[in-house]
Amino acid sequence: MNFEKLLRPQSVAVIGASTDSRKVGNNVLDNIIQGGFEGHIYPINPKVDKILGLKCYQSLTDIPEKVDLAVIVIKRDLVVPVLRECALGGVKAVIIITAGFGEIGEEGRKLQNDIIQIVRQNKMIMMGPNCLGLINPWHKLNASFGQGIGEPGSIGLISQSGALITAIQDMSVETRTGFSVMASLGNKASLDEVDFLRNLRYDDNTKVVAAYLEDISRGQDFMRVAERVSKTKPVVILKAGRTESGAKAASSHTGSLAGADSAYNSAFERTGVIRVESIEHLFDICTAFAYQPLPQGDRVAVVTNAGGPGIMMTDALEMAGLKMARLSDSVKEELMNYLPAAASAHNPVDVLGDAGGELYGKSMDILLESDSVDGLIVILTPQKMTDDVAIAEAIVAASKKYSKPILACFMGAKIVAEGIGLLRENKIPQYSIPERAAYAMREMVSYSNYKRRPLRVVERFAVNKIPVIKTIRSVLSKGFLEIGEIDAKAIMKAYNFNVPPGLLATNVEEAASFSAEIGFPVAMKISSPDILHKSDVGGVRIGMQNVAAVEDAFELMMMRVKRKMPHAEIRGVLLEKMILGGREVILGMKKDPQFGPVLMFGLGGIFVEVLKDVSFGLAPITSEECIKMIESTKSYKLLTGARGEKPYDILSIVENIQRMSQLVIDFPEISEIDINPLKVGYEGDGAYVVDARIVLEKEKV
Amino acid sequence: MNFEKLLRPQSVAVIGASTDSRKVGNNVLDNIIQGGFEGHIYPINPKVDKILGLKCYQSLTDIPEKVDLAVIVIKRDLVVPVLRECALGGVKAVIIITAGFGEIGEEGRKLQNDIIQIVRQNKMIMMGPNCLGLINPWHKLNASFGQGIGEPGSIGLISQSGALITAIQDMSVETRTGFSVMASLGNKASLDEVDFLRNLRYDDNTKVVAAYLEDISRGQDFMRVAERVSKTKPVVILKAGRTESGAKAASSHTGSLAGADSAYNSAFERTGVIRVESIEHLFDICTAFAYQPLPQGDRVAVVTNAGGPGIMMTDALEMAGLKMARLSDSVKEELMNYLPAAASAHNPVDVLGDAGGELYGKSMDILLESDSVDGLIVILTPQKMTDDVAIAEAIVAASKKYSKPILACFMGAKIVAEGIGLLRENKIPQYSIPERAAYAMREMVSYSNYKRRPLRVVERFAVNKIPVIKTIRSVLSKGFLEIGEIDAKAIMKAYNFNVPPGLLATNVEEAASFSAEIGFPVAMKISSPDILHKSDVGGVRIGMQNVAAVEDAFELMMMRVKRKMPHAEIRGVLLEKMILGGREVILGMKKDPQFGPVLMFGLGGIFVEVLKDVSFGLAPITSEECIKMIESTKSYKLLTGARGEKPYDILSIVENIQRMSQLVIDFPEISEIDINPLKVGYEGDGAYVVDARIVLEKEKV
Repeated sequence: MNFEKLLRPQSVAVIGASTDSRKVGNNVLDNIIQGGFEGHIYPINPKVDKILGLKCYQSLTDIPEKVDLAVIVIKRDLVVPVLRECALGGVKAVIIITAGFGEIGEEGRKLQNDIIQIVRQNKMIMMGPNCLGLINPWHKLNASFGQGIGEPGSIGLISQSGALITAIQDMSVETRTGFSVMASLGNKASLDEVDFLRNLRYDDNTKVVAAYLEDISRGQDFMRVAERVSKTKPVVILKAGRTESGAKAASSHTGSLAGADSAYNSAFERTGVIRVESIEHLFDICTAFAYQPLPQGDRVAVVTNAGGPGIMMTDALEMAGLKMARLSDSVKEELMNYLPAAASAHNPVDVLGDAGGELYGKSMDILLESDSVDGLIVILTPQKMTDDVAIAEAIVAASKKYSKPILACFMGAKIVAEGIGLLRENKIPQYSIPERAAYAMREMVSYSNYKRRPLRVVERFAVNKIPVIKTIRSVLSKGFLEIGEIDAKAIMKAYNFNVPPGLLATNVEEAASFSAEIGFPVAMKISSPDILHKSDVGGVRIGMQNVAAVEDAFELMMMRVKRKMPHAEIRGVLLEKMILGGREVILGMKKDPQFGPVLMFGLGGIFVEVLKDVSFGLAPITSEECIKMIESTKSYKLLTGARGEKPYDILSIVENIQRMSQLVIDFPEISEIDINPLKVGYEGDGAYVVDARIVLEKEKV
Repeated sequence: MNFEKLLRPQSVAVIGASTDSRKVGNNVLDNIIQGGFEGHIYPINPKVDKILGLKCYQSLTDIPEKVDLAVIVIKRDLVVPVLRECALGGVKAVIIITAGFGEIGEEGRKLQNDIIQIVRQNKMIMMGPNCLGLINPWHKLNASFGQGIGEPGSIGLISQSGALITAIQDMSVETRTGFSVMASLGNKASLDEVDFLRNLRYDDNTKVVAAYLEDISRGQDFMRVAERVSKTKPVVILKAGRTESGAKAASSHTGSLAGADSAYNSAFERTGVIRVESIEHLFDICTAFAYQPLPQGDRVAVVTNAGGPGIMMTDALEMAGLKMARLSDSVKEELMNYLPAAASAHNPVDVLGDAGGELYGKSMDILLESDSVDGLIVILTPQKMTDDVAIAEAIVAASKKYSKPILACFMGAKIVAEGIGLLRENKIPQYSIPERAAYAMREMVSYSNYKRRPLRVVERFAVNKIPVIKTIRSVLSKGFLEIGEIDAKAIMKAYNFNVPPGLLATNVEEAASFSAEIGFPVAMKISSPDILHKSDVGGVRIGMQNVAAVEDAFELMMMRVKRKMPHAEIRGVLLEKMILGGREVILGMKKDPQFGPVLMFGLGGIFVEVLKDVSFGLAPITSEECIKMIESTKSYKLLTGARGEKPYDILSIVENIQRMSQLVIDFPEISEIDINPLKVGYEGDGAYVVDARIVLEKEKV
C-alpha cells in the first residue's frame, strides 16, 4: 500500500538535500538522521558527494534500490521534472515540502496542476506541496523541517498549518503528549484530511485523530469516511475560519472557499466528529481519549484536598452537563471509616489538606468500585504536608486497577512538578484547572454516548418521481429556475407531503363548482408566471366562506389584475382549502458548496424572522437527526404543549423534513426549497404545506 | 491605620511559634524569616528560649515594644485568651491562622463569636480564623504557611480558599505574575472582601484587585465599595458556587448561604466588577490589567509569522466582540515597503515564517502609530529561522514607545522559552493560545468602556408616599402579607404608574354609571379578600361594550359568586377600562438575601413563561441600567419595530422599572412585586399596569 510507504517507509530519498545548514534541504536530511530512522537514507544532490556523513546521489536513478518515499525540497521550478523522475523510478509516495504553488497565484496553480496530473497518472500519493513534512515517532521517521521527533504516543495529528505543528511539538515535549503521527497537509493538492482519516482508521498506534483544518474540500467524502472512523476512534477537529472575518483570513491564507460554518457544525454533529475551539481544548481532550478508557455514563466523582477547587469543579461539571455522582449511604460510610472527622464524604469528597497518598488511594478505590460512579477526577492543591508524588502514585495504581476514566487536576507548577511528571509518564491526563478537566470528561461522556448510538438509518418513502421530473423539465425548458407555488405544491404532493386540496379555476363557473368541491373556507390566488407579488395586484383573497363570495372574488380579481398587468399571462385562479388552526413552522433547504443540501427548521413568524431561532441538518437525514434539529431550537418548547396547550404533531414535522431530504437527494437539480409555512396540527393531526417555493440549480442538467 | 499595620507592619509576633518543623507554628515563623522581613520578629512560646535562631518570648507582655501585627497559630482553645492578651497589649492587627471555628459547627461558632466581640470592643482588625495568612512581597512579609514570598507585582489577590493561594503562588513562579498582596480571608469573621477592597483602593502597589470568593456576605456594602474601586482600578472576581450543585458544595464548605447567582451577576455588572470563570481567566486578564495600558477602543491589529494562528486569532477576536482594525491604504503601503512580496499587509499582518526581530519591530511600529489601531497582539510560532529573543526584544521596545496595549502569543514552550522569559521579565502579558489573548483584550476594552461611563445617577420621581404607607399598615394590621390587585394598583398610582381608570361598584346602579364614566370597553372583576381565583367562581368578565352589558354582567356575577361562595366577603365589582392593543411585558421584584431588591423584566406570555427570557437588575437602578436590562433579553427585538411594525414605547418601560425601583427602596417592607402584564403602547403612548400584586416581608415592621 502506498500510504504504508508514506507512513512507514523502508527507504527515503531527500531530493534537494543540501550541505548548507541554513537550508531546508539540509534540515530535513538532518531531521531524518537525528530521528534515528532505521531504513536507508539517500540524499540527492548532483553537486556534492557527501552530506551530513551520508553518500550523496546524483539523481534518483543512481540509487541501487526502488525508494519507498521521496521527500522533495528542491527549488520550485525543478519540482515538476523531479516528480516525473520519481514516477519513472517507481516511487509511489512523495512529500513535496517546496512552496510557491497554489498558494501564490496563477503561475503556481499551473505548476500545481502539473503535479496533480503526474501523481494521478502514476497512481502515486503525494503530501503537499508547501508543507512541513511528516513525522512518525513509532517508526523513528522525522521527514520534516520541524523540531525534534518527539515521544511516540497515541494521537494522530493532521494540520493544514505547518507552523502549528512546530508549535504543538514544542508544547508537547513537557506535557509528554505523544503522537502516533504528525502530518502537515500543505496545499492538499493530492492527499488531504479525508485520505489521512481513511488511513489512520487502520493505524493501531493511533487511538484518536486530531486535526487543525481551515477548510474541508470534499465534504461528502469527508462525512462518509469520518462517520466510519468515529465509530472506531474519536476524531477531534479544530476548524478555523468560524467567523466572517476568520473565514476571510482563511480564504486569503489558503485560497480555498470554505462552506458555511453551520454546515460544518451539522457535518461534524452527524459524523460524531468532536469540534473544539482552541489548541488547548484539542489537546485537553485528545489526551483523555488517547490514554483513558471511555466512561459508561455521566456520573462523576471528585476527590479533593481543598474545598475551593472542589466547588469550582462542581460548578464546572454541572455547567458541562455532567452529573455529580450521588454516593449511597454505604459508600459514604465506607469513606468515613478512613476519612478524618472534619472531612466530607459527600461528593466532592474532601480528604482535607493533610491527606497523603494512602488516604487518596483508599478514597479513590471506594469511589471507583461504586456502581454509581462512571468517572473520577482527582484534585490536588499543594499544601503544607501534601506529598504530590505519593498521591500521583496512588492515582497511577488506581488507573491500573479500574476500567473507569481518571483525570487529574494538580493545581500548581514547581512544587507539584514531580507528581505531575509521574502522572504524565503514566499517561494520566493532567489539567491545571478544574474547568479543563471537566470539559475533557464531558467530551468523553458525549463521545461514549455517540458510540452507543444505533447506526444511522435513512428512511426511504414511497414517492412518485414522474411528476417531479416532468415539472423540472418543463420549468427548465422555459428557461426558468424558480418553481412557483402551484408547481412546487405539485412536486410536494408527488412526495406525499400534505398539501391542502386545491384546484385551478379558469372561469367563474369552475371557481364556483371547484370551491364547493374542496370545501370552505377557501383561499384564492391568481396564477401567472409573470406575477411575482400577487397581493400587490389584488391577486390574493382569503377566507371565502361560500360560493357567492368565491364568484364575486373571482370576477373582481380577474378584472383588477388585467387592469394592472394587461400583458401578464393569466392561467387562472388557484382555489385552495384553508387550513385553520395549527402552528406555523418553516422548513427550508439550501445547498452548501462542501456538504450539499443543508436542511433548515424553525418556528414561523417572529421566531425565524426576528429571533433567528433556526437549526440545521444535512441531507440525507435520519428521523433521530430531525428530532434533534427540532429540539435544538429555543422555541421548541412551544410545540410540546406549553401552558396547558395540547402538544403539536412533532412527528409530522420530522416526516416532512425527511421527505424534503429525500426530494433533494433524488433531485440534485434542486438548489433551494422554502416551505413557509408548514401548518402543524395537534398530535396525530398531521401538517400541511400552505406555501412552497423551489429554486433549481443554475448550471446543472 | 490598623490596615496599614496588617499590610506593612514594623513588628510581628508569632503566637504559638514552634520548634517542630512539621507544625504550622514553625512554618509561619520560618516564612517570615525566609521572606526577608525587615522589622522585628517576636516568636512567642512559653516553653522554649529560641526558635529558628530568634529569641523566644513567654508571652506578649514580655515583648519590649507594642507589636504591630500578631499572627496567632496557637491551638484552638487558647485562641480566645491569647486574643484578649493582644487586646490588652494594644495589638491592633491580628491574623488568626488556627482552624476549628465557624466552619466546624456549633462549638466553633461560639468561640468565633467570642473572637468577633473582642475584635470589635477593642477596635482591632482580624483576618481569619482558619486562614493561610497574608503575604506582601513589597514589604518582604510572608505571614503565612504558604510557599515562598514570590515576586512583587501589581496584582492584589484576596481568596476565600487558602489552598488556592498556594496553588496560585506555585503557578505564578514560572509566569512571574507578581503580586502586591495575597490575603487568605478564611472564615471572614472580621475582615472580609469589602474591607480589603476598600483598603486596596489606596494601595499604590495594587493596580488590579483579584478575588476568589464563595459568597459575599455584605452585598450592599460590597456594591458601594466595589463601584468606587472600579472607577480607579479593575476588580476581577472568580465567584464559585455558580450552579445549584456548586452552591450546595460551597455552602457545605463555608456554611454560608450565598444569594442567587443572577443577583451576583447584576451586582458585578452594576459596579464594573469583571467576573471570570476560571483561575486561568483570572490571571490572563489580571496580568493584562496589571502591566499594560488600557485600549481606547476596540480595534485590534495582529502581527503573525504563520497563517493558521492568524486565522484563529481573527476568529477569537470576532467572537470576543472586538474588531479587526481596518488598515488604511497608506498603512498597508508602508507595511509593504518592508514586508516580502508573499506576506500579507492585511490585518492579520502575516510577516511570514522567516521574519526576524527587525521586521516584527517595523510592522509593530507602523501599526501602533496608526490611528485605526487601539491594541496589538503579536503571534509567534517557532519556525526554522525564528529568533524568539530578538522578536521579544522588539515587542518590549514597542511597548516602551507606545501607550497602547500589546499582548504576546508565543506558541510553544522549550524552543521559545528564552523569548517568553524576556517577555515576562518585561511584563508583556504572554498567552499560549490566541483565544486567551483575545479574551484578555476583550476584557480590557470592556473595562476601558466602563471607566468612561458617566457616573450612575438614580433619578427620583415625585411621588405620594401617604397612600402607600396607609395601605401597607392596613394590610399588615389585618394580618395579611399579600396585597391584591385593587390595593396594589392604588400603590402603583401613588407612584405615578399609569393604571387604567377603574372604580369599585357596590351595586348595579353604580356599575352602570361608573362604566359610563370610565368608558368602554370595560373589564369587570369581583373584589373579595376571600376569593383568590376569581375566574373559577365566575368573577371575571371582559370586553363589556355598553351599560346594558355591564348591568347584566354585574347582576349575574353577584348571583353566581354568592351561590358558589356564600360566606365570602364581597366588596363589590371592580370596573376597569380595558387597554386595547399594546405589547404585554412583565416587571417583577424579589429580594435577594445579599443584594436586596432584584428587579426583573421580560416580555409577556410565552417569553417569560415558556422561554424564560428574562433579565435582572438591582434597585436603586439608573435609566441606563434599565435600558441594558431590556436590551439584554432575546425578545427585545420585538419591541423595536420588527417586521415593519411601529416601535413600542421602550422609554415608558424604562420609567416603570425606575418607579418600581424607587418604590421598593422607599418601602423595604415590600418583599415582592409582580406587574403582569404591563401593556406597552407604541412610542409615545405610554404603558399601563393591567394587573399587579405586592407581597410584604414576613418579619419587618
